[in-house]
Amino acid sequence: FKNPKIAVIPGDGIGKEVIPEGVRALEAANRKFGIGMQFDHFDFASCDYYLKHGKMMPDDWFDTLMKYDAIFFGAVGMPNILPDHVSLWGSLIQFRRGFDQYVNLRPVRLLPGVPCPLANRKPGDIDFFVVRENTEGEYSSVGGKMFPDTDREFVIQESIFTRQGVDRILQYAFDLAQSRPKKHLTSATKSNGIAITMPYWDERVEAMSKKFGDVRTDKYHIDILAAHFVMNPDRFDVVVASNLFGDILSDLGPACTGTIAVAPSGSINPEGKFPSLFEPVHGSAPDIYGKMIANPIGQIWSGAMMLDHLGYPEAGNAIFSAIEKVLAAGPAHAPLTPDLGGTAKTDDLGKAIAAAI
Amino acid sequence: FKNPKIAVIPGDGIGKEVIPEGVRALEAANRKFGIGMQFDHFDFASCDYYLKHGKMMPDDWFDTLMKYDAIFFGAVGMPNILPDHVSLWGSLIQFRRGFDQYVNLRPVRLLPGVPCPLANRKPGDIDFFVVRENTEGEYSSVGGKMFPDTDREFVIQESIFTRQGVDRILQYAFDLAQSRPKKHLTSATKSNGIAITMPYWDERVEAMSKKFGDVRTDKYHIDILAAHFVMNPDRFDVVVASNLFGDILSDLGPACTGTIAVAPSGSINPEGKFPSLFEPVHGSAPDIYGKMIANPIGQIWSGAMMLDHLGYPEAGNAIFSAIEKVLAAGPAHAPLTPDLGGTAKTDDLGKAIAAAI
Ligand SMILES: CC(C)[C@H](C(=O)O)[C@@H](O)C(=O)O
Ligand SMILES: CC(C)[C@H](C(=O)O)[C@@H](O)C(=O)O
Repeated sequence: FKNPKIAVIPGDGIGKEVIPEGVRALEAANRKFGIGMQFDHFDFASCDYYLKHGKMMPDDWFDTLMKYDAIFFGAVGMPNILPDHVSLWGSLIQFRRGFDQYVNLRPVRLLPGVPCPLANRKPGDIDFFVVRENTEGEYSSVGGKMFPDTDREFVIQESIFTRQGVDRILQYAFDLAQSRPKKHLTSATKSNGIAITMPYWDERVEAMSKKFGDVRTDKYHIDILAAHFVMNPDRFDVVVASNLFGDILSDLGPACTGTIAVAPSGSINPEGKFPSLFEPVHGSAPDIYGKMIANPIGQIWSGAMMLDHLGYPEAGNAIFSAIEKVLAAGPAHAPLTPDLGGTAKTDDLGKAIAAAI
Repeated sequence: FKNPKIAVIPGDGIGKEVIPEGVRALEAANRKFGIGMQFDHFDFASCDYYLKHGKMMPDDWFDTLMKYDAIFFGAVGMPNILPDHVSLWGSLIQFRRGFDQYVNLRPVRLLPGVPCPLANRKPGDIDFFVVRENTEGEYSSVGGKMFPDTDREFVIQESIFTRQGVDRILQYAFDLAQSRPKKHLTSATKSNGIAITMPYWDERVEAMSKKFGDVRTDKYHIDILAAHFVMNPDRFDVVVASNLFGDILSDLGPACTGTIAVAPSGSINPEGKFPSLFEPVHGSAPDIYGKMIANPIGQIWSGAMMLDHLGYPEAGNAIFSAIEKVLAAGPAHAPLTPDLGGTAKTDDLGKAIAAAI
């Protein structure tokens, strides 16, 4: 991507506080590496926009964003204003489906200087990826309610797993595993309980593994897999999971490394036919919004992933190294936010990282 | 229940090693408290039975087991012999549905002497219950495959939440919360992503909470809830969850307290119309079966829960206290299994606990 064009969407809550810091870091890398990246800002995909327009996004959102090489996204959702399923399905889920961002890539890494809730783990011990299917599975919009407002009332929702959808995420995950030194892939399943879709998932994993003889493959049911994230997080290299299981594991993994506020994610269309989207794993956190105490590192690290994706890995590494450097300095020597043991504001930390690039 | 009749079903793998220790502890309590409990053993609901008979259970399993006041169960599943969804849906899931055991009750407690993977947590800090819906939700048998063996192949599975099914588990969980000092209930949801069934779940929680004005109620999406189990496990008192979410949380909780091997569970029909079932949270663990190194405490503690349920809480407490006492003694003074830092065999630990009752 030459002179990549970036659509910047802050969204709601602390998204509006951390996005400027993400852009600050990207601008620093932009100058240093002469990338020629351009940014345009948009106010839609937010509950503010909804309050003004009665919908989360303008009707031409698709055409508008198709002109960009990537979307740099903050967070969305203000449950006091609008139920989450309305705000999310009117924005983020639309992007993931509309732009066929079928890979959700989420690194789980124990970083220096981040307080870890697990005993006896040090940086380097935990370093893996969750590869999450991002368009189908348990997140379907098919279903409904029967016998409303009676004792017989029930709701149904379909989980839908297509061969195409499953195979392409497995292909991506196996490719990633093959490119890494450990060449190890773990599949998240629940075929003992979810007895229709999950045995199918296992079947496709088995078939795909035949094409990757050099990748060691295992599978765990999601219940015991979640347990192993806590007990044996050093066991994992690439973990591939359905939409729901990937969602759970990619919050749980960062929790085990103490880094939810720090964790980045990419919703990727690997073929590059549509723009990919980069956003922190954390949400809009209405409870701390307005205090400027949000940790901007998840947003900044997401920017580093975006540069990787756009073909500027040195620039991405420069941002990641700056994050590591500032974190390792600790609250006595760097302006860290309260969650990291410091007293600094969101923009103080953002400026320190930008300066370190 | 006077002179309660117990159906003992070891099942597969380490189920066969830990069941005798569970029965040993129950016999000790039986004598001490003059309960008059009687035990009958059954070999069905196992893969061995399947190999002999081509099915997991005899056709009259329902009538056979209806004659008992409770089922004391080991574990089932030998994936090398039979796919898990065949063995489980042919046994355990049949019991849960057939006997309408709609409550799955799983304590999460940090015990003395159990190595905890979390930093800076001590016994007493973590003490809550997961109340899991046990008959419907994501564990449905409705669905199927379309366009098999073509590129258009897909599978569908329905999640089904009925008002009756949701309300009765919520009622149980709110009652339990109300009976505890903290009076705090946490609902596991995912209404931002699973946008049909989970908003319905939230709606019913909201409605039920109106009847329990003295119970403080909150809700978390399952992804961040799993994260809080690791980051803030002291925050919880009673956690109510759907079948799948409860399954995940009730493995994750014990993992956070280091006690998967130790964790018990009850599949309960609160009305007592059908026998309830008590079993450890762990599975049949084919990888360690045959070595007699399995930790029997999950099974023994399940026996204590069974005595509670049958109306003998002093006897249940006696078993639980014996477990605590032996654990607290540590590997230098008690015959603990390898997972607890000792070198003892399954039956050594079982005998020590029975002796302490
Ligand atoms: C074995 C399996 C079907 C079962 C479940 O998922 O319910 C188990 O994990 C449990 O938690 O009892
Ligand atoms: C906000 C929500 C719909 C979303 C998801 O579940 O996908 C979020 O948790 C995430 O992980 O990106």
